[in-house]
Amino acid sequence: MAGRERLLVIGGDAAGMSAASQARRRRGPDELEITVFERGHHASYSACGIPYLAGGVVADAGALIARTPEEFRDRGIDLRLRTEATEIDLPGGRVRVRGLDGGGERWEHYDRLMVATGAVPARPRLPGADAVGVHGVQVLGDGIRIRRVLDDDRPRRAVVVGGGYIGLEMAEAMVTRGLEVSLVDGADQPMRTLDPDMGALVADALRGVGVRLYLGEPVEGFDTSGGRVTAVRTAERVLPADLVVLGLGVRPGSDLARAAGVETGATGGIVTDRRMRTRSEGVWAAGDCVETRHLVSGAPVAIALGTHANKQGRVAGVNLGGGYATFPGVAGTAVAKICRSEVARTGLNEREAAEAGFETITAAVESTTRAGYYPGVTTMRTKLVAERRTGRLLGAQIVGEEGAAKRVDGLAIALWNGMTVEEMTGLDLGYAPPFSPVWDPVLIAARKAAERVEEDMRAAP
Amino acid sequence: MAGRERLLVIGGDAAGMSAASQARRRRGPDELEITVFERGHHASYSACGIPYLAGGVVADAGALIARTPEEFRDRGIDLRLRTEATEIDLPGGRVRVRGLDGGGERWEHYDRLMVATGAVPARPRLPGADAVGVHGVQVLGDGIRIRRVLDDDRPRRAVVVGGGYIGLEMAEAMVTRGLEVSLVDGADQPMRTLDPDMGALVADALRGVGVRLYLGEPVEGFDTSGGRVTAVRTAERVLPADLVVLGLGVRPGSDLARAAGVETGATGGIVTDRRMRTRSEGVWAAGDCVETRHLVSGAPVAIALGTHANKQGRVAGVNLGGGYATFPGVAGTAVAKICRSEVARTGLNEREAAEAGFETITAAVESTTRAGYYPGVTTMRTKLVAERRTGRLLGAQIVGEEGAAKRVDGLAIALWNGMTVEEMTGLDLGYAPPFSPVWDPVLIAARKAAERVEEDMRAAP
Repeated sequence: MAGRERLLVIGGDAAGMSAASQARRRRGPDELEITVFERGHHASYSACGIPYLAGGVVADAGALIARTPEEFRDRGIDLRLRTEATEIDLPGGRVRVRGLDGGGERWEHYDRLMVATGAVPARPRLPGADAVGVHGVQVLGDGIRIRRVLDDDRPRRAVVVGGGYIGLEMAEAMVTRGLEVSLVDGADQPMRTLDPDMGALVADALRGVGVRLYLGEPVEGFDTSGGRVTAVRTAERVLPADLVVLGLGVRPGSDLARAAGVETGATGGIVTDRRMRTRSEGVWAAGDCVETRHLVSGAPVAIALGTHANKQGRVAGVNLGGGYATFPGVAGTAVAKICRSEVARTGLNEREAAEAGFETITAAVESTTRAGYYPGVTTMRTKLVAERRTGRLLGAQIVGEEGAAKRVDGLAIALWNGMTVEEMTGLDLGYAPPFSPVWDPVLIAARKAAERVEEDMRAAP
Repeated sequence: MAGRERLLVIGGDAAGMSAASQARRRRGPDELEITVFERGHHASYSACGIPYLAGGVVADAGALIARTPEEFRDRGIDLRLRTEATEIDLPGGRVRVRGLDGGGERWEHYDRLMVATGAVPARPRLPGADAVGVHGVQVLGDGIRIRRVLDDDRPRRAVVVGGGYIGLEMAEAMVTRGLEVSLVDGADQPMRTLDPDMGALVADALRGVGVRLYLGEPVEGFDTSGGRVTAVRTAERVLPADLVVLGLGVRPGSDLARAAGVETGATGGIVTDRRMRTRSEGVWAAGDCVETRHLVSGAPVAIALGTHANKQGRVAGVNLGGGYATFPGVAGTAVAKICRSEVARTGLNEREAAEAGFETITAAVESTTRAGYYPGVTTMRTKLVAERRTGRLLGAQIVGEEGAAKRVDGLAIALWNGMTVEEMTGLDLGYAPPFSPVWDPVLIAARKAAERVEEDMRAAP
């Protein structure tokens, strides 16, 4: 068919499928052929739901799958599962793909290429790391496998390696299932994206639900017996384990694109412009494999998060479909729930702000989620990081319980707009006793921060 | 004592006591004498908590009182309860006060005067409106009285007159207590601060919990027997009632100040500058008795809400204490919970936007509070009102259940900063399955609104 273009998409998850869907909305099958290659057994699923599948909060894997391959095919998107892209040939405008269930290798031609290769989980190069019973938490299959182990093998002791979001969510999942859970991390606190004082509150909350924390203890290896993991070793102890979960973070999965000559940045992520175009003609990229701009520091960052992947994929798809859309960057917002505890952050923490060259003033306040007399009221701590002198909000962190974490949205929007903590004290936020004390915690924190900025000014004019 | 000034405060509730406390923080008793006259039996209580006290959600009235008169006295604030200011003499710099429990009248001199006379409840001039069993919901005593009636007299049928926030909260309180509750309003919808389509959802929710709604039926009178109310009459029906609650809204309680010559505006509220100074030398005002600027329409408005009263009182107090603070105005943000339903709004609704001279584009989306697969997920509706052509956010409304309403904070902050719905689509909001679908409802609504703005542009360039 004359003039019909071919779009190949590598990676069938959040970014890839969002891009494919948007491009299809704008250009019909007569104009644009869309083929997606996905290495895994599933596409278009919520990776963030894996801990809830593993722990049984979500009944079955199907609940995490937004759309089936058939649904995509009905929309004119040819989604090929178990098909791995092994090489990109930029000058030739083609991608080499391999059927993982047989079918050999072949070259596929493209007019436009969308790279959505996601993230690569950090896996320790340690003895025993590949033993049976050591699980990653990356693809849907990992969640299905862990769930099956919890359901069928009834393990008693679990060790989680890594105290980031995924590690904590997996710890919650297994505590809820009644396992004896230990969490090991080389860092001195869980959630390194929080400042130490706020991280300490998370550590307390984890201990409070029965998780044994071993912080500042890098894992040195895994004991095995007959190919099965039996324990996790640190310099200080041996932790017996029927089950090990690795939540060590991820890096951008940009190897394939880099090998082809697509430019990547200092973070390891693929460099794109705000329309999600790479520096290579006809090649677009989105999701965990790219780097993006942090709106406060201005620096490139690689933050693997489904919400960014969806937004970036959509932007790429709109542009691939002949429209115009841009991705502005990220504010570093994140929220997590671990049993009753809610944790949130946005912008820069103290360390990040210092690295970005800011002098800072901080203020942390203890307040409540609702009016003190309203049932279900809980205590929450809100910390703000503001620029010294100007008082511009640079970052915020929250640790609390029900109703606490989503307050980070308002803080993220304030920060996005460059508000100062002084300006924020006047904000008109929703108040009624079931939702907030008469001074919302966000306002109380802003007031305290504004006072601190003023005190500092007076102390050193 | 030479140079010692005297600050008189009329009204000992949110605005008055905030002002007194802030002024005291900045100027000690040797510099500034502070005397507060409060007509009622209580000061410094949460008026917003009255429905919860009445319904028994809050155990006793003491829980609503932030500070006792003794606590204020310990801080050097002379709070005189049951003392009514009956006249202000501006040229003479004095206020006439009357002890309501005896003690006669006298003039009290001031150097600075703080007017915090609150709001006056609308009371219908209708036959029977003063009968026993017809209750206002204005002061703490009202809540105590209604609670006592519910506890001791075990009434069976209640009629609430007025479908605003207070009316609905009182309806909830009495439904929870097992009463048969009818709600009557002359308007065609409850919550007139919402657009009709969103108000209809609130009406459905009220019916869903068993409230009988009679809308578009102004109350014409109250039947009484032996001085007690027995029924509420509209043109269409007679509603038997053991108990009637009036939630008909309020107007600024500015009569005392106006009579003295202090300037009031078209809303009936006292006119102040951003530091909360009236146009009369030495006279400051804050709270429900003043009018303020709506940040979207630019027009003066009088919105009786504890959160504004506290902020304005604080600003007045900082300035009275020799500091510098300003109140920027309001965005019209409000939230309410009625049984399981959560309702929120900010900015202008369609009618208000039209009155303010805006041409608008609206978008309403149905979405979920959490990831679709996460336990406790509920449906919520988010409606945005944007300026035609520019896409600037003018207002937002939310109706949903747990986790829905406080999302209005982010919308209020976006609107405060003049963001367009297109800009909002890129916002970095907190995402994790327990808190949000991967596209937060705020983002989905912004996307739909941005599409509408673009479609309109294309249809009529």
